[in-house]
Amino acid sequence: MADEVILLSVWASMFGMRTRIALEEKKVKYDYREEDLWNKSSFLLEMNPVHKKIPVLIHNGKPVCESLIQVEYIDETWPGENPLLPSDPYQRAHAKFWADFIDKKVNVTARRIWAIKGEEKEASKELIEIFKTLESELGDKHYFGGETFGYVDIALIGFYSWFGVYNKFGNMSLESECPELTRWAKRCLQRESVSKVLPESEKVTKFIFQRLGLE
Amino acid sequence: MADEVILLSVWASMFGMRTRIALEEKKVKYDYREEDLWNKSSFLLEMNPVHKKIPVLIHNGKPVCESLIQVEYIDETWPGENPLLPSDPYQRAHAKFWADFIDKKVNVTARRIWAIKGEEKEASKELIEIFKTLESELGDKHYFGGETFGYVDIALIGFYSWFGVYNKFGNMSLESECPELTRWAKRCLQRESVSKVLPESEKVTKFIFQRLGLE
Repeated sequence: MADEVILLSVWASMFGMRTRIALEEKKVKYDYREEDLWNKSSFLLEMNPVHKKIPVLIHNGKPVCESLIQVEYIDETWPGENPLLPSDPYQRAHAKFWADFIDKKVNVTARRIWAIKGEEKEASKELIEIFKTLESELGDKHYFGGETFGYVDIALIGFYSWFGVYNKFGNMSLESECPELTRWAKRCLQRESVSKVLPESEKVTKFIFQRLGLE
Repeated sequence: MADEVILLSVWASMFGMRTRIALEEKKVKYDYREEDLWNKSSFLLEMNPVHKKIPVLIHNGKPVCESLIQVEYIDETWPGENPLLPSDPYQRAHAKFWADFIDKKVNVTARRIWAIKGEEKEASKELIEIFKTLESELGDKHYFGGETFGYVDIALIGFYSWFGVYNKFGNMSLESECPELTRWAKRCLQRESVSKVLPESEKVTKFIFQRLGLE
């Protein structure tokens, strides 16, 4: 029986991007279904009754929730092509630490820039610090895991398509503040899995401005 | 060469308890070092420079941070005895989902009961709902993973030693609200790994009251 793989997501979600990139890396065919967060499908509510959030990956009828867990699940279910996590336990723990750092810090801080009035300045500074910490973890490596594109790259790259939003609301240029990270992002974009999935920064910015009624 | 395993933690930390229980389950000998959070050791700051938080597990000189990542690391490094995560990818993802749910919901909500004045009532209600959700996931299973004590049990059990704190500040009885979860906790406490590590609820309550200058 062929695998039936469905992904419920929203095109601008950096979390959904993770799962899509992982599926592309593994060359898994999947049925992508765009959700409307203001009018969630009953299928989404049924598949993720606890959090009621996207992305949800449904493999042969069974849901997997939370993007990083989905990426690990994809890596374990289709282990042959392009391993995403290292096999060494210490290296795995190291990769998970940085993906967890991204999850705990980046989005929470970034949202304060564009979604909470009055916090733009403070949150912008903090976000730059967070990206600089990531930049120093990257060091002079090609990808976060070394020579091979993998888990931490997938965890972070979606946020690059939101740089335009952060820059505009935070009145800054993340590209100038973090030139190494920007070079890394451009390197990632040379991969088909990433270029196929990441939207243009301008498109995300326009979408957010429209959503907030600023345009 | 024998393994050198060091754990930096604080006795009342439910996160540190996770790592200690996992080490006990695997029968790994380790050097436990109590930290003072108001005067952190330079070794802690050196081993976890990003978050500067306990617990930190140091294996042959190399640090692993974040308690759930430590539990996975322990399971992968000493796979022989008492597997903590299931081997099937879907079951693994399912266990990780619930551990992540605990991390995202339980502590954040519980802290609002005892650490944020004015939020006790609302947060107590929410915490009961969270534990009821966990209770319904447990169902009539012996442990969260079925017959075998494992990852989700380890992620949750430490909070049981804080029930006294939540009850006192929230003016409630979590034991009466969640009888099935209480029975599960008592079952866990029959395991040597858990009984050896979990402090008495009264001891935790006394400690918190002293810390807050309420006694």
